Amino acid sequence: MLYLIGLGLGDAKDITVKGLEVVKRCSRVYLEAYTSILTVGKEALEEFYGRKLIVADREEVEQKADNILEDADLSDVAFLVVGDPFGATTHSDLVLRAAKRGIPYRVIHNASIMNAVGCCGLQLYKFGETVSIVFWTDTWRPESFFDRVKKNRQNGMHTLCLLDIKVKEQSLENLIKGRKIYEPPQYMSVNQAAQQLLEIVQNQRMRGEEPAITEETLCVGLARVGAEDQKIAAGTLQQMCTVDLGGPLHSLIITGGSMHPLEIEMLSLFSVLEDTSESQSIDGL
Amino acid sequence: MLYLIGLGLGDAKDITVKGLEVVKRCSRVYLEAYTSILTVGKEALEEFYGRKLIVADREEVEQKADNILEDADLSDVAFLVVGDPFGATTHSDLVLRAAKRGIPYRVIHNASIMNAVGCCGLQLYKFGETVSIVFWTDTWRPESFFDRVKKNRQNGMHTLCLLDIKVKEQSLENLIKGRKIYEPPQYMSVNQAAQQLLEIVQNQRMRGEEPAITEETLCVGLARVGAEDQKIAAGTLQQMCTVDLGGPLHSLIITGGSMHPLEIEMLSLFSVLEDTSESQSIDGL
Repeated sequence: MLYLIGLGLGDAKDITVKGLEVVKRCSRVYLEAYTSILTVGKEALEEFYGRKLIVADREEVEQKADNILEDADLSDVAFLVVGDPFGATTHSDLVLRAAKRGIPYRVIHNASIMNAVGCCGLQLYKFGETVSIVFWTDTWRPESFFDRVKKNRQNGMHTLCLLDIKVKEQSLENLIKGRKIYEPPQYMSVNQAAQQLLEIVQNQRMRGEEPAITEETLCVGLARVGAEDQKIAAGTLQQMCTVDLGGPLHSLIITGGSMHPLEIEMLSLFSVLEDTSESQSIDGL
Repeated sequence: MLYLIGLGLGDAKDITVKGLEVVKRCSRVYLEAYTSILTVGKEALEEFYGRKLIVADREEVEQKADNILEDADLSDVAFLVVGDPFGATTHSDLVLRAAKRGIPYRVIHNASIMNAVGCCGLQLYKFGETVSIVFWTDTWRPESFFDRVKKNRQNGMHTLCLLDIKVKEQSLENLIKGRKIYEPPQYMSVNQAAQQLLEIVQNQRMRGEEPAITEETLCVGLARVGAEDQKIAAGTLQQMCTVDLGGPLHSLIITGGSMHPLEIEMLSLFSVLEDTSESQSIDGL
């Protein structure tokens, strides 16, 4: 049996009791290590589980999936994923490969950023399509995701923005020279995401378009959701450029405009708004 | 401290290790018992936790929240919610009351239907606004939610439909006579939801409108997601009227039309399609 087990969002103890039991009895335990991170490292997980973990990077999962599935029809193999196995990144590919080989699989679900963002008080059922914001480079500055933010906002829906993670990436030089030297991991902050969003807004204005959001649009920055030191800040997009949320992982929500009174009241618990015009809607309670 | 603890979706062992530790040490433990159910009952939870649970029905949480918060500034109180505390139903109101009384709170997240539906292979980030389908009565047959299905589909987004739960409801007669006699709980099935949807489609046609979905629209029925005996069925809306998914809880997804090849391949694992026209898109792989 192949078990896909969600680890949740905080630390080692956020695994479910059922998940932990399975981890303890599996013959091999893989840790997917490229789409997200916990606030604790692999060693803390190994100590808590009392098991050695095999780190599966993107290459391993995408190109050497057969290693993971080896003997999984005869013994139990666990594949651990931060958050939920079908959260932001689905692991459909691994499931399909298992199915083709006649290997049964089971999913042990957990919280993922896709549902845990509800902790800021915005109602989950009012979220539209989720977008990813990637690190811009000098030559690659994609803006196309912005259309989805616009559509969501036009329909009064909030947009969850997942922020880029770069793990085990090689510099162009090292890639060309075939040197397996990797750059330090990079995690996009709410500040960086907000700055890129404002640049898109300015580009749209220069082209004579009416941008779907402005500097004053109400946003929510979230950091380390589910961890002890989680931080949430509600304020304008402009304020998101400078708010200090600490270490990774960060996420950003662009609100959908109209909000339920309970949503507004919840956001006021996390308000960093000062004396701006849109702040009335939060401070005026 | 007030702890809001998600129980996940399956049975007693779907609580997180962290959640279980908190439950064991709290002075009082409430179980929210009106928005969802586990496949096991309160007694199974009590046995596994080694604790007595206080069942909090809607009235208790909405009108007697002060009982729940009593002394929570001095001792630890746990409020258990099936799924995630900020899942389909937020418990913002309880959090806001705690905040007003200066009682600190913490959320221990878990899987909820809002993210666990990813197990069918449809990509979570492509879901639009979530809708609720309520039991129709002879005199109350709301169709307004259908506009949101339409908007989602126009934008290529999937729609998760949460199906009605009626727990601890009184008949009109008992209500008028002030008798605290409650009807047996009712859980809407995928069959019932699909039949109501088809009736709306027919009503729209009679009014000369073009319905956003038809009998042939590809849907996914899900039952007891996260439990051992979970069932998933992918087929047309017409087929959802008769598919047998067993006991509650059920959910229904109306797909957004265009799909990623991986989504189609995953749905084919759960296909109940026969020789209909839309089945080509699944069977043709």
